[in-house]
Amino acid sequence: MATRRPVITLLTDFGGAEPYAAAMKGVIVSIQPEALIVDITHEVPPHDVPAAAFILHGCYRQFPRGTIHVAVVDPGVGGSRLPILLSTADYHFVGPDNGIFSYILAGEEMRGCHAITAGHYMLSPVSSTFHGRDVFAPVAAYLSRGVSPDSFGEPFDRPARFEIPRPQVLSAGRIRAAVLHVDRFGNVVLGLTAAELDQAAPPGGAGPRLRMAGGGVEPSGLRETYEGAPEGKPFFLFGSTGYLEISANRASAAAMTGLKRGDFVEIEIG
Amino acid sequence: MATRRPVITLLTDFGGAEPYAAAMKGVIVSIQPEALIVDITHEVPPHDVPAAAFILHGCYRQFPRGTIHVAVVDPGVGGSRLPILLSTADYHFVGPDNGIFSYILAGEEMRGCHAITAGHYMLSPVSSTFHGRDVFAPVAAYLSRGVSPDSFGEPFDRPARFEIPRPQVLSAGRIRAAVLHVDRFGNVVLGLTAAELDQAAPPGGAGPRLRMAGGGVEPSGLRETYEGAPEGKPFFLFGSTGYLEISANRASAAAMTGLKRGDFVEIEIG
Amino acid sequence: MATRRPVITLLTDFGGAEPYAAAMKGVIVSIQPEALIVDITHEVPPHDVPAAAFILHGCYRQFPRGTIHVAVVDPGVGGSRLPILLSTADYHFVGPDNGIFSYILAGEEMRGCHAITAGHYMLSPVSSTFHGRDVFAPVAAYLSRGVSPDSFGEPFDRPARFEIPRPQVLSAGRIRAAVLHVDRFGNVVLGLTAAELDQAAPPGGAGPRLRMAGGGVEPSGLRETYEGAPEGKPFFLFGSTGYLEISANRASAAAMTGLKRGDFVEIEIG
Repeated sequence: MATRRPVITLLTDFGGAEPYAAAMKGVIVSIQPEALIVDITHEVPPHDVPAAAFILHGCYRQFPRGTIHVAVVDPGVGGSRLPILLSTADYHFVGPDNGIFSYILAGEEMRGCHAITAGHYMLSPVSSTFHGRDVFAPVAAYLSRGVSPDSFGEPFDRPARFEIPRPQVLSAGRIRAAVLHVDRFGNVVLGLTAAELDQAAPPGGAGPRLRMAGGGVEPSGLRETYEGAPEGKPFFLFGSTGYLEISANRASAAAMTGLKRGDFVEIEIG
Repeated sequence: MATRRPVITLLTDFGGAEPYAAAMKGVIVSIQPEALIVDITHEVPPHDVPAAAFILHGCYRQFPRGTIHVAVVDPGVGGSRLPILLSTADYHFVGPDNGIFSYILAGEEMRGCHAITAGHYMLSPVSSTFHGRDVFAPVAAYLSRGVSPDSFGEPFDRPARFEIPRPQVLSAGRIRAAVLHVDRFGNVVLGLTAAELDQAAPPGGAGPRLRMAGGGVEPSGLRETYEGAPEGKPFFLFGSTGYLEISANRASAAAMTGLKRGDFVEIEIG
Repeated sequence: MATRRPVITLLTDFGGAEPYAAAMKGVIVSIQPEALIVDITHEVPPHDVPAAAFILHGCYRQFPRGTIHVAVVDPGVGGSRLPILLSTADYHFVGPDNGIFSYILAGEEMRGCHAITAGHYMLSPVSSTFHGRDVFAPVAAYLSRGVSPDSFGEPFDRPARFEIPRPQVLSAGRIRAAVLHVDRFGNVVLGLTAAELDQAAPPGGAGPRLRMAGGGVEPSGLRETYEGAPEGKPFFLFGSTGYLEISANRASAAAMTGLKRGDFVEIEIG
């Protein structure tokens, strides 16, 4: 489970213009000079745990085995929520126990989870407002040096998880899905995978059509690529993370449809 | 042509808040743990190939010989445009064949160009929407491990290039130049180098004056530095990449003049 | 004073969407391939030297001994201000002599300061507009290779510093403090430390109350954590860098109070 050069990723809502992310990196490098630190992003909207969870989900599997993913969107910092260390077959995850690892927990078999309580792996004193620097960064760095997960604290059985919106089959060939994410390009990512769509499709159905409650914009079908799509009309496409997306050719499908995270769309297949 | 530690730069329009750039880094590190990955930027405006081309142009030469520059602004992803690998005496360039390397092609002698078709150097399956992760990142990583450019596919003779706006001599001492870029500070970068300006200048001419079609704001001459310039008045200055710029002292010349990329200015010399 | 792998941090106002920060990295890597380059931020507001100074202050101490901190917010580039190299017991600081190291100079004992004049450690030619690339990056890289600070130029006695706003005791239990920074979360960082507050407190006083000149929003006391605080009401809290902050629970105290950098607040203790 180790790579030669330890990889530690960082995902926070600290913003790119503050000293907070850099402080975490300084702490990591001080403890583990060999670490390769990779920023996933520091631009999660402030306090937006579900957004962070989705972004982590969208890239964590690309990293080599043994990578330590540190995710800190932590509005409850200093309060009762515990810092945790979660391990799967391939990765470690370090962050607050607030649901930020919900997609990981839904998709991976957990090999271990520990509450982080061992003060000697933290900075001293631990502030009540910046566990990214004082707890999560040093724990990740020590973990990358080979400290065993057991050493950081007691096993912790039930890490918090929020419910990930699942598609709902309304009737034969009719399915309701939530908007999980809208990306920079205006792609509208739906909580609906190819397998889930197949399962809901009536036998011999053609490509899916979209019907939104009260919506007037109707994607023109299921496409394989952006290119060649008529301008100004959104369409469906399975995106790079496996979810159905509403997209447009060099334009924002989100702007066209008005959809945003948390909205629901109804899709008719047939 | 090799440095001891392979350097791979990344330039995309993926945005700093999405998982896409991190996914590319995960792929690279998985294949080439020794890579030094340098972000040029991920904030190119979505689909803006000319902007990406200019930004790459503005920094690629600072990197050590052997650096692999990966540039992915790729609105035609999954369509007919090919992925290419372009090599010059000092660098490799990996990206879509859509003109993103136009400045490189205009300024460097090409030592080789290959279409990237060898599937075993790509992730499997290759998505139709995210070649940054599935094609360009792994190809760059394998290239940095010493795989020969020939191995990725057949030679490719004519990489796409858009026309870079060249200055146009309208009459003796009168020249028309395009705005290539407006930077964060409001510097207006013109497609006009010192050599081109010299060539157009009448013998014994003084510093250049600017006249814009219908413009009221007139830079006060050619300066060497921002400092000491009167406040509120734009001026000319040769910028750090060798182009003539319209600048202002601690203020945005772009805001003062209203100029934006693609506009033209007429400059009188004398 | 050396770490095995040299660490060089970068703090600029170059923006994340321009080629300038990447150009600096290319220069550093060309001279010192072993450097670990850590971005503090490139999103300092253009020309905002005090903002850069505060951000550097907020994280520099987390880095390992020997780290070279390069800070380039440099509106006077190419003018009369000198490039300097400042050394403390643990760190080196490289940047323009314009006050950007004011917090460092206020908080650390200076072990040496040199004007940077040795042209053979700079790129050639040195542009008049981009010393980040042509002076500061190569100097930091050579310094990390073991070149002695003396080699870059003559000792320089009086690096520029701006005055850091200190708290002012107005009367017993009444103190006036400046807003040093407003962060991404809307935390309002005040120029007032725990020691300074203690000193101003009347014996046996309770937690501090806030009174702002003409202000209507009154923080509810001094808290240890964000969690548990009533929604919609700002409060005091000592932040992670040791300053008193006005904060709110999952909300922006800056938006609630209207405070911005440079404003003053009056705090009553008792």
